[in-house]
Amino acid sequence: MALRGPLFRLLRNNLSHSCRQSRAQSVAVLGAPFSRGQKRGGVEHGPKVIRDAGLIDRLSGLDYSVHDFGDLNFRHLEKDEPYMDVKFPRNVGGANKMLSSAVILNVLLYLTYKTCLRLSSSSHSLAIGSVSGHAQQCPDLCLIWVDAHADVNTPMTSPSGNLHGQPVAFMLKELQDKMPDIPGFSWTKPFLSSRDLVYIGLRDVDPGEHHILKNLGIQYFTMRDIDRLGIQRVMEVTFDHLLSRKQRPIHLSFDIDAFDPSLAPATGTPVNGGLTYREGIYITEEIHNTGLLSVMDLVEVNPVLGANPEAVEATASLAVDVIASALGQTREGAHVSIVEIPSAKNDTEQLCL
Amino acid sequence: MALRGPLFRLLRNNLSHSCRQSRAQSVAVLGAPFSRGQKRGGVEHGPKVIRDAGLIDRLSGLDYSVHDFGDLNFRHLEKDEPYMDVKFPRNVGGANKMLSSAVILNVLLYLTYKTCLRLSSSSHSLAIGSVSGHAQQCPDLCLIWVDAHADVNTPMTSPSGNLHGQPVAFMLKELQDKMPDIPGFSWTKPFLSSRDLVYIGLRDVDPGEHHILKNLGIQYFTMRDIDRLGIQRVMEVTFDHLLSRKQRPIHLSFDIDAFDPSLAPATGTPVNGGLTYREGIYITEEIHNTGLLSVMDLVEVNPVLGANPEAVEATASLAVDVIASALGQTREGAHVSIVEIPSAKNDTEQLCL
Amino acid sequence: MALRGPLFRLLRNNLSHSCRQSRAQSVAVLGAPFSRGQKRGGVEHGPKVIRDAGLIDRLSGLDYSVHDFGDLNFRHLEKDEPYMDVKFPRNVGGANKMLSSAVILNVLLYLTYKTCLRLSSSSHSLAIGSVSGHAQQCPDLCLIWVDAHADVNTPMTSPSGNLHGQPVAFMLKELQDKMPDIPGFSWTKPFLSSRDLVYIGLRDVDPGEHHILKNLGIQYFTMRDIDRLGIQRVMEVTFDHLLSRKQRPIHLSFDIDAFDPSLAPATGTPVNGGLTYREGIYITEEIHNTGLLSVMDLVEVNPVLGANPEAVEATASLAVDVIASALGQTREGAHVSIVEIPSAKNDTEQLCL
Repeated sequence: MALRGPLFRLLRNNLSHSCRQSRAQSVAVLGAPFSRGQKRGGVEHGPKVIRDAGLIDRLSGLDYSVHDFGDLNFRHLEKDEPYMDVKFPRNVGGANKMLSSAVILNVLLYLTYKTCLRLSSSSHSLAIGSVSGHAQQCPDLCLIWVDAHADVNTPMTSPSGNLHGQPVAFMLKELQDKMPDIPGFSWTKPFLSSRDLVYIGLRDVDPGEHHILKNLGIQYFTMRDIDRLGIQRVMEVTFDHLLSRKQRPIHLSFDIDAFDPSLAPATGTPVNGGLTYREGIYITEEIHNTGLLSVMDLVEVNPVLGANPEAVEATASLAVDVIASALGQTREGAHVSIVEIPSAKNDTEQLCL
Repeated sequence: MALRGPLFRLLRNNLSHSCRQSRAQSVAVLGAPFSRGQKRGGVEHGPKVIRDAGLIDRLSGLDYSVHDFGDLNFRHLEKDEPYMDVKFPRNVGGANKMLSSAVILNVLLYLTYKTCLRLSSSSHSLAIGSVSGHAQQCPDLCLIWVDAHADVNTPMTSPSGNLHGQPVAFMLKELQDKMPDIPGFSWTKPFLSSRDLVYIGLRDVDPGEHHILKNLGIQYFTMRDIDRLGIQRVMEVTFDHLLSRKQRPIHLSFDIDAFDPSLAPATGTPVNGGLTYREGIYITEEIHNTGLLSVMDLVEVNPVLGANPEAVEATASLAVDVIASALGQTREGAHVSIVEIPSAKNDTEQLCL
Repeated sequence: MALRGPLFRLLRNNLSHSCRQSRAQSVAVLGAPFSRGQKRGGVEHGPKVIRDAGLIDRLSGLDYSVHDFGDLNFRHLEKDEPYMDVKFPRNVGGANKMLSSAVILNVLLYLTYKTCLRLSSSSHSLAIGSVSGHAQQCPDLCLIWVDAHADVNTPMTSPSGNLHGQPVAFMLKELQDKMPDIPGFSWTKPFLSSRDLVYIGLRDVDPGEHHILKNLGIQYFTMRDIDRLGIQRVMEVTFDHLLSRKQRPIHLSFDIDAFDPSLAPATGTPVNGGLTYREGIYITEEIHNTGLLSVMDLVEVNPVLGANPEAVEATASLAVDVIASALGQTREGAHVSIVEIPSAKNDTEQLCL
């Protein structure tokens, strides 16, 4: 994917300071089917089941012009020995690099044509590419990470070695000297300051991760914090932390396992006591209302891990609801503007919305 | 049902200003099995399954004298062509007229004998008759509408043409010139001011409905509002809006689909993200505590749409809980008054409550 | 179980004022399989299924040294006629006496070796022995009772005669003259002041119980109170009520039926509208954070009453979560202390937590 060609220059010229415009008229959808960030397969089918659950129709119904770029086709590397304990480093690194390029291009499209990009990634290990690509075009972005897990282990603190538990560590500037040179990741370097990140929904944090969260002073809200403060206050503090100094693009990385397992059973690492449906929707409604959502990842829907078809369908349908809500679907209605209610005095045959 | 006979005059003479007495000693139950307000049948069995779930016993256990008037027997009109897009106008209109008369009579009984009326309607299309009958005897009533939907489409804004999505439009004075002359409804005219209505639980509002809600300045609480304010505050604002100027009778129209579909699956138009069990019970507890509940409808339990017998049973049992709570069942106990705990010093053989 | 032997004297000598030290390093687990406090059997298997759900491993993972004392072996008395309406008085009394002695010994161990005792009782009828044994060693303890029911019926107010609905009445000094001399209970006498008790989670309170709660001015929180105040405020008021005058040992008696039946289906007397998973965990987190938890009972898990193996497993797993949370498992991580995140500059081969 060449980013130095004529298209790139054309788009670049139209850019200026448009990283923070307030409302998108069209949305790009890009699937990234990939499962090498974790041991158990299946998550690569996430983009498909989310589409099958009606994503495109739903977004069209919100009056967006939807540009579906289909799925990325990642190259599989046969020879990919673990590095330290890290599994499949070259596959994960390569996929992220490809995704990063795709996001760069999509963000350029977004900035030019006011297209809000939405990515239907599969594994959270791909967040490295998604956020880094976004950050290349919008260096002042902030990151909201909705997840049961902090995903901020370094290769040395990770209990499992799975890269889907480590993506944030690849992003944070403050962890640069804690990260070894992992094969497959030479194309990227840390780009995010820890003060530009907020976690929501944590409830299964590894000891090394807790140390990092505390030491770097990262703003995070565990489920206990949500219990104490309520989701409304959590969102207020989130925006106060990220946006009070300046308005800037938001990257939303939403792991479906942030929800309670009773709502999102078809996922790889469920943890009890998660977000309610209404809390999840409230989060995305609030983010939409800022007018600053720029890129969104929805990850870790794994149809292979659903106990039955209903479990998979419920999880995929929930993913569609979350995406639609982030893109403006409201519980109050009003996504179509009406000037006046038809009067019974008019010719009723001609009346319609 | 003659409302001009000697019984009517007898009751009328006993009336005076008793519309707002504070506590009922007996309760009337009236079923209204009907399904022509929507496309899918089954909701006409709602009253039966709610009775089967133990309604009468439960109310008796609350120390009410229960008057069960059985079910209304609606006449079915074979010839009932749609009017514009409106389905079955004459059947719905006729059933509402009959129900209205029954409610008038029951409210008279209530006013005379301090009987609180509870109606187990089936389809929400019947609310027209129920509320209008109530309003004929208590013109200053207010209406609390607990529902996932606003049910305030006019025939011209309705996307489906089903009358169970339109009953409130028939009631509101402010919409009078938006309503065509629908066959079957010549017996009624708008009687409710939009400031005397509060919605709770909305989360699926059609564009035309949203326009009406906003334009008429109706007080409504979507699930998002409940998320923001909490159900306690929602009820405070509700009562402040409806009762702060004067105490007056409350008509409670409770659609079972206000609850989350996980709690009330056997209903026709479920919408995710609904009321919790505790929120629903809190609403009815608070309404009971005003001492002003005069008529209640519990609608849209549809046993045919339950995926299995357990789903139907759960929905019907929930309906019974809601009705019992509205009529005074508490989570704190104390529905039976006790003067003193029996002492062990007395003859224990004679001790019982 | 001889409490006057040399071990007792040894422990006694080491006691002094250590009832309120702040943190335990080890934990004692004691099962008390018993079902004569209620009509329906099965609850005697509660301790086994909770162990099978991984209790010991989970506690070990929290860095406790776990002392598993196995299960008490209660003697069954064939001849045990009801006294008044009270079922199996001699069996329940005898089991409680045995449990009381065991708790006394365990608390002594606790006081000496900083061992926090956790009891996996089965029936709530055994709370008499558990709390009384605890109180003999720590007379200034306070009691937090998390339950759908108040369990404070006297034999004269009990609608059922089952002793699992009466244990608190045996404890309260203020009810002494309301309690007849029940065979099997001559070994104990009331020891708890009603101001040293707080209930959380009530939603099914018998009339006589309500009278007692009100008359004795007991601090209690029904589910309605939790709806009004939120669980955070409920815990604040609880601690303010119990601990504001002085820090003292907490006895936590947690009935699994405090949770909603959708979470804890395998129990004998489920009541709709219970605690959410997060509320239950919040309660135990807060109690742990006081540093004052001394003895905990987890009761009424009944595997025989689960509709299927999944229901039993969910209930038992929930019990383990509650116990682990009360003993310090957090949703924020951090149960293992780390000095520094390993740096990538070091020899990575040697790095581990």
